[in-house]
Amino acid sequence: MSRFSSIEQLSAACNDLPERDEQASMAAAARQDTLTKPQGSLGRLEELAIFLAGWQGRAVPRLDQVAVIVFAGSHGVTARGVSAFPAEVTAQMVANFAAGGAAINQLARAAGAELTVVPLEIERPTADFTAAPAMTEDEFLAAVSTGYDAVSPKTDLLCLGEMGIGNTTAAAALAAALFGGKGADWVGRGTGVDDAGLSRKAAAVDAATAFHGAALSDPLAALARVGGRELAAIFGAVLAARCYRIPVLLDGFVCTAAAAPLARLRPTGLAHALAAHMSAEAGHRELLARLGLKPLLDFNMRLGEASGACLAVNLMRSALACHAGMASFAEAGVSEK
Amino acid sequence: MSRFSSIEQLSAACNDLPERDEQASMAAAARQDTLTKPQGSLGRLEELAIFLAGWQGRAVPRLDQVAVIVFAGSHGVTARGVSAFPAEVTAQMVANFAAGGAAINQLARAAGAELTVVPLEIERPTADFTAAPAMTEDEFLAAVSTGYDAVSPKTDLLCLGEMGIGNTTAAAALAAALFGGKGADWVGRGTGVDDAGLSRKAAAVDAATAFHGAALSDPLAALARVGGRELAAIFGAVLAARCYRIPVLLDGFVCTAAAAPLARLRPTGLAHALAAHMSAEAGHRELLARLGLKPLLDFNMRLGEASGACLAVNLMRSALACHAGMASFAEAGVSEK
Repeated sequence: MSRFSSIEQLSAACNDLPERDEQASMAAAARQDTLTKPQGSLGRLEELAIFLAGWQGRAVPRLDQVAVIVFAGSHGVTARGVSAFPAEVTAQMVANFAAGGAAINQLARAAGAELTVVPLEIERPTADFTAAPAMTEDEFLAAVSTGYDAVSPKTDLLCLGEMGIGNTTAAAALAAALFGGKGADWVGRGTGVDDAGLSRKAAAVDAATAFHGAALSDPLAALARVGGRELAAIFGAVLAARCYRIPVLLDGFVCTAAAAPLARLRPTGLAHALAAHMSAEAGHRELLARLGLKPLLDFNMRLGEASGACLAVNLMRSALACHAGMASFAEAGVSEK
Repeated sequence: MSRFSSIEQLSAACNDLPERDEQASMAAAARQDTLTKPQGSLGRLEELAIFLAGWQGRAVPRLDQVAVIVFAGSHGVTARGVSAFPAEVTAQMVANFAAGGAAINQLARAAGAELTVVPLEIERPTADFTAAPAMTEDEFLAAVSTGYDAVSPKTDLLCLGEMGIGNTTAAAALAAALFGGKGADWVGRGTGVDDAGLSRKAAAVDAATAFHGAALSDPLAALARVGGRELAAIFGAVLAARCYRIPVLLDGFVCTAAAAPLARLRPTGLAHALAAHMSAEAGHRELLARLGLKPLLDFNMRLGEASGACLAVNLMRSALACHAGMASFAEAGVSEK
C-alpha cells in the first residue's frame, strides 16, 4: 500500500511543511562575518553556507551524504511525435545508468554523491494526456509515494532529476496548467526536435489544456492529469525532503516543473530548494522567474538526468569548506577595517 | 638574473605564442558527438572538455596537476586612501595563507589543487603611481620573471590570483590605460570602501592617466607604470602558461586586468585563458566584455586570492569526467535520433 492513499492525505501533508531553523541560519551568518575576508566578499558562497545551515539546523552544516535520485517514466504523449528520440530510449538509458555509462554516472562520482535510479513502470506508459488523464488517482499516488520513500532522512543534500522521452512536453503542459499561457510559451526543443516537432509539442499542450479544462486549476490534479510518473515522483521526493528539512538541488525544466505544484500549494513550499542551473530548454527561464529561483549555473545544458543539479554539488562543497575551515580575524591576527 | 632581462626580450616572447592543437580539439569534439546524450546537450561542459583538449594537445585531456598560484604585492598608492583596510593586511594575509586559514586554502583543497603563494617584496611597496612609475624597468622585469618561473610546465590547469591591499586601484588604472575611459568607469568598492574612498580611487586613476600620458599606450609600459608586482607576476604566469600550452583560469578584476596586456599585444593572446567568474567589482563586467571572455560563474564574489578561479576547477573536472567516462551510443546500445 502506498504512503499516500488519498489526495486528501497528500494535500494535508503539503500544507504541513516545516520551515528552516532560524537560529542555525543566524548563527551561520554571524560566523561568516568573523572570517578572514571582507564581509560579504564570498557572495553567493556565503548565502549557500547559510542556506545549508538553516535547513540542516546546524550552524556548521555537513555534506557527508549527498544523494542523487533520477526517476524515469514513459509517456503516452510520445504517440503525438513530440520527441526527437524513439520512446524505447527511456528503457535503454535506464540500462545505461545501471551500466555506469551515462553523464549522470560521471557527474555523481565527480560530486562525491550516491546515485539511485528509480524506474517507474517504464514498460507501462502513462495515457496520452491530450485525451485522458495521464494517470489515475491510484497511479498518481503510487508514483508520489515512490518518490517520497526514495528519500532517506539521513540525506544532507538531495539532487533530483529525471529521464523520460516525451517529458518536456508533460512539463510544458504542467507549467501551462500552473501558470497559464499557451503551449508555445512553454515548449522547447527538448532532446532536439525540429520546427515541426516543436509545433506538435505546442499543439499537444494546447489540446491538453482544452481537454482537462478547469480540473487543472488544482495543482495536484494538474500534476496527475498532465504530468507523468517521474514528475509525480520528483514532487514526492521534494515533499519528503521538506518534511525532513533536507536542502534540495533542482535540475532543469522538467524537474523544476515537477516541483512547482508545491509552490502553488504553499507560497514558501520550495524554500528548501535551489535551482542548480538555468537550462537551455526554452521554458525554464520563465518557470524559474515565476518561482523566484535564481540559478547557480548557466551552462546551456539541456540533458536532464539531474546533470545540472549534480554539477552544482561541488559549489556547495566549496561554500561549506570556506564556512567550516576559514580562520577568523582574531585567530589569524589580521587587522579589520 | 631574471629570465627576462630587457623589455625587448619580453616583448619578443609575447609575440611568439603557440596556438592550440587543432587536431586534439577536433578529436575531442568528434568524441563528444558519440556519447550517450543529445548532441550539444551538455552545453558548456562540452566546450570546456574541447578547450582543455586543444590546449593540452590530448583528445582526452587530464586534470592530475591543477596548480593555484597567488601572487602578493604592496602598493604605494595606498597612501592615497584607496582601501578600506590598512596596508599591513597584505603581509597578514600572506601569513594567513601560510597558516591555512584563508578562503583560498579551503577552496584549493576542495578543488584538489596545489596552492603556492608567492609574495613579491611585500615589505617594499611600489611607488605611488599617481606621481611616478610604480616599478622601474628592472623591478618590472623581475616581477614578470618571478611569475613566469612560478609555473611548472607539467601543470594541467593553472588558476591565478592575487592579494594586495590597494590593487583594485592599480587594476582600474591599468584597465583605463589599456582600454580608455575615466577612473570612474573602472573603479569599484574593492574590499569595501565608502563613497569618499571610491572618489579617491577614481581621482588616483585619473591622476595616473594624466601623469603618465602617452607612455601608457604601450601595454607592457602601462603594466609597469600603473600595475604592481603581483599584477606583473600574473602577466608573467599567463605568458608562461601560453608558452607551455597550459589552460588558465583567470580570477576576478585584478587578475583579468593583469592578463589583459597580452590580449592588447596579440589579439589571440588570451585564447588559452577562461574567465572563471564575474566579480562583483564594478569594472570586471566591462573588462570581460572588452576581452571577449564569458565567465563560467556569476556568484557576486569580490575576494580575489584566486577564489573564483579555484571554484571553477570542479566544473572543469565534471566536464572531463563526462568526456572521458561516458559510453557511446554504440557501446550502450542506445537508439539514435
